[in-house]
Amino acid sequence: MEVPASLVKELRFKTGAGVMQCKEALTASNGDIEAAVRWLREKGGAAAAKRVGRVAKEGLIYSYIHPGSKIGVMIEVNCETDFVARNPQFEQLVKDLAMQVAASSPTCVSRDQVPADVIEVEKDILKKQAEGEGKPAQVIEKIVTGRIEKFYGQVCLLEQPFVKDMNRSVQDMVTEAIATIGENIVVRRFVRYQLGGD
Amino acid sequence: MEVPASLVKELRFKTGAGVMQCKEALTASNGDIEAAVRWLREKGGAAAAKRVGRVAKEGLIYSYIHPGSKIGVMIEVNCETDFVARNPQFEQLVKDLAMQVAASSPTCVSRDQVPADVIEVEKDILKKQAEGEGKPAQVIEKIVTGRIEKFYGQVCLLEQPFVKDMNRSVQDMVTEAIATIGENIVVRRFVRYQLGGD
Repeated sequence: MEVPASLVKELRFKTGAGVMQCKEALTASNGDIEAAVRWLREKGGAAAAKRVGRVAKEGLIYSYIHPGSKIGVMIEVNCETDFVARNPQFEQLVKDLAMQVAASSPTCVSRDQVPADVIEVEKDILKKQAEGEGKPAQVIEKIVTGRIEKFYGQVCLLEQPFVKDMNRSVQDMVTEAIATIGENIVVRRFVRYQLGGD
Repeated sequence: MEVPASLVKELRFKTGAGVMQCKEALTASNGDIEAAVRWLREKGGAAAAKRVGRVAKEGLIYSYIHPGSKIGVMIEVNCETDFVARNPQFEQLVKDLAMQVAASSPTCVSRDQVPADVIEVEKDILKKQAEGEGKPAQVIEKIVTGRIEKFYGQVCLLEQPFVKDMNRSVQDMVTEAIATIGENIVVRRFVRYQLGGD
């Protein structure tokens, strides 16, 4: 089947995927653009893994100021090309991430940014808690490990449940965007201000 | 002269000044609101000094994203009451401050936030520069002190020349706002992101 260039262009704009990939998706979907988007999403799962690690230094700086102007978030999300930075799906992802930060107050992007001494102190607290609950010694370590995972899930943006779909993590959402959009995407940094906070 | 309550209200909304002060200003200006604003501005100069140091924990969080979304600024500016936080003059001040940060990239709010070791290193560099320029030993210290002042004027937001009026410093503008608005105003913190920057 010959795929019209206009359809390729539209799919490319919609998903940010490459020209060849869009042609392939449209061919496989007989030119049905919604089916092609789904095809890219499914097909993209495997491709996403390959894209992680590619240099991402384009992107957007975006801010969300909560009504009342007492809470504000600014975030930088990187992708590989300026083309994708202007893609509506990428823009939506960035907006969702900013809302996530406003709503769930993470302190860092990912677990490698949690200082080791913070984890040590936290482990110590959790261990004493578990002991205080009268848990047997042989399961305390397991309990502490489990609760440390939960701790990461609270403080790390990427490990938080996504506020718009609590069954998925923020990381899941980013991975899906990498798959559909076809470029590596990196949440580089964010800052959250609360009036009178630190 | 009897001052109409509606005029007091308008002046109060315009400047954020207290009721008594607005009445006084309008009486002195024969009910001319523009003259009353000027009166408050001049009269306020002395009052501003008294207001500095009063607790300011209300205010606004505001962000400015430069067109293209590659530079962003978020800022928190405090005042004493939520009433003033919603005052248009205060809002304009906050906007001007955010634009200032976007345009002039300060690294901190005021000179007390510049780490002592940064100043030591800078002094060392400046001293060697002055020596390299063959300046006599007895004036080098003076030169270094002068250039350190210039350095503060570059890195500290409050000491920068105000981009909308380079004859005044940002501090002058804030002091004027304290005088006119009638509350202490504190630039609490800001952050400036540039795409791909640190």
